[in-house]
Amino acid sequence: MDTFLDIFNSITLLKIIDFIGTFAFAISGIRLASAKQFDWFGAYVVGAATAIGGGTLRDVMLDVPVFWMHDGIYLFCTGLALVWVIIFRRHLVHMHNTFFIFDAIGLALFTIVGIQKTLDCGMSIWVAIVMGTMTGAAGGVIRDVLINEEPLIFRKEIYAMACVLGGVVFAICDLSGMPAGVTLTLCGTTVFLTRLFAVKYKICLPTLKPEDDKK
Amino acid sequence: MDTFLDIFNSITLLKIIDFIGTFAFAISGIRLASAKQFDWFGAYVVGAATAIGGGTLRDVMLDVPVFWMHDGIYLFCTGLALVWVIIFRRHLVHMHNTFFIFDAIGLALFTIVGIQKTLDCGMSIWVAIVMGTMTGAAGGVIRDVLINEEPLIFRKEIYAMACVLGGVVFAICDLSGMPAGVTLTLCGTTVFLTRLFAVKYKICLPTLKPEDDKK
Amino acid sequence: MDTFLDIFNSITLLKIIDFIGTFAFAISGIRLASAKQFDWFGAYVVGAATAIGGGTLRDVMLDVPVFWMHDGIYLFCTGLALVWVIIFRRHLVHMHNTFFIFDAIGLALFTIVGIQKTLDCGMSIWVAIVMGTMTGAAGGVIRDVLINEEPLIFRKEIYAMACVLGGVVFAICDLSGMPAGVTLTLCGTTVFLTRLFAVKYKICLPTLKPEDDKK
Repeated sequence: MDTFLDIFNSITLLKIIDFIGTFAFAISGIRLASAKQFDWFGAYVVGAATAIGGGTLRDVMLDVPVFWMHDGIYLFCTGLALVWVIIFRRHLVHMHNTFFIFDAIGLALFTIVGIQKTLDCGMSIWVAIVMGTMTGAAGGVIRDVLINEEPLIFRKEIYAMACVLGGVVFAICDLSGMPAGVTLTLCGTTVFLTRLFAVKYKICLPTLKPEDDKK
Repeated sequence: MDTFLDIFNSITLLKIIDFIGTFAFAISGIRLASAKQFDWFGAYVVGAATAIGGGTLRDVMLDVPVFWMHDGIYLFCTGLALVWVIIFRRHLVHMHNTFFIFDAIGLALFTIVGIQKTLDCGMSIWVAIVMGTMTGAAGGVIRDVLINEEPLIFRKEIYAMACVLGGVVFAICDLSGMPAGVTLTLCGTTVFLTRLFAVKYKICLPTLKPEDDKK
Repeated sequence: MDTFLDIFNSITLLKIIDFIGTFAFAISGIRLASAKQFDWFGAYVVGAATAIGGGTLRDVMLDVPVFWMHDGIYLFCTGLALVWVIIFRRHLVHMHNTFFIFDAIGLALFTIVGIQKTLDCGMSIWVAIVMGTMTGAAGGVIRDVLINEEPLIFRKEIYAMACVLGGVVFAICDLSGMPAGVTLTLCGTTVFLTRLFAVKYKICLPTLKPEDDKK
């Protein structure tokens, strides 16, 4: 009974986190599309690309079925995010912190899912870290390519490196034989907290200076 | 005899429509590349990406063989389009309406092909609608990414939504058990006419307004 | 003994050329990212996309395992290139000719690898030429999309056409029954020399003129 409940709860919890993350990622795409005055269709596509682009790239590269084709929830969730932005447009700025937290939660979960799925394909742990990072961060890059901007995550506070860090924690836990639950929790927490601290303390990676820099 | 002739004619007709659509899509890519003063190779690549990009994305996501690798006609047709633009450059503006009609025909056919191919893979009808739309409209997005512009179809008259509408008509016909021929014809006609009316009456989707809009 | 040594040497040589090419491609991506003041992570991603993007696209389209997931050397080499740019930033301009030669060597090898891999999949020779060109030149296009610039190879001295030319030489050698070693050498030499002469004599393809050109 207990085990069943555990599994049921964890699955429900996972689904809720997955929904929250997808929603937050889609919102981020739709808001940037709205700043470019895209129409509803364009905003939906940019939102969807942000939310499911990373996972799609991962699945295509791993040559496994693309995840969102087998569960309508992802495209439905993106549609919900579009309606949300249309209705609450003027209030979005006040929800800034909430969406930031949701986005960080999504980043953590997507990283874990990407790592786990890659390992299930029999790949090395370093490929899994790359794929986990791609699952979490590539959607934002595709979003910025679609709205014709330089990718934000290549210049702002640490984002994708949080996924890499989480992936390293996953690898260490996994290699030292920790139970799966602990490994996943530590990995996700690392991604989430790294992202939180990075934004709170404006922690950026060093920038490559142009070659003709005179200083 | 009659059936054989029917099939023969329909296949020939399909091939002709396919060629016309590919040609029109390639022309649209090559013309935009020429506005950016790309060289012949660049124009060819942008033309090819416009013409076969959507179908390539579809085939890669569905994990089926990429269609243009098994029939040289598509890359040949793109080459023909390049020669056409080089020779008739100054007259292209007078062929505007013809190319618009060809483009709409291509959009309709590509949508049908995308839907049918996705259903043949055993996918749900909503995945087929997404894939049909991608087959018709993603090439134009790839084109605009390559020429470093914001995707036109995210802002101008209804384009991809014509594919979605055609897909919905397909689904309704299919679910109500209509013969395949009727389903395909109604779907294609819907895409074609929607696109025609959208441009004639400048019908656009609502635009997402920026969040700080004061009105 | 002789044969063994031959194979060993050729394999070692191939691996060295592969490393040099990957390094040069990654450097080109990282330098352009540094001009945009991307951070280290952004520069790494752009470098990796330049170095392995073409081959990844090829493998995904051919539906074969993506090459860099099975050999860590490619991502390691990109990391080395990043360190190199960080340390030798101010001296890179003096290494210009060296990197140009390395880049041309990489272009030649990547073209050969792409052609050979495509033929091994049972594809036609013209598909192999397209895929060889994609292996050599698509990484640079992905790089320019990521840094939000118009693809350089669509406007500057002959680059991708060197791969096409090499591919045609490959096809002619192959069809006339030459030994594999000769075919590969002639193909690679063609790509390398074409690229060298194109830059030395500033040979460009004709440009598509805008349609409203008055002249």
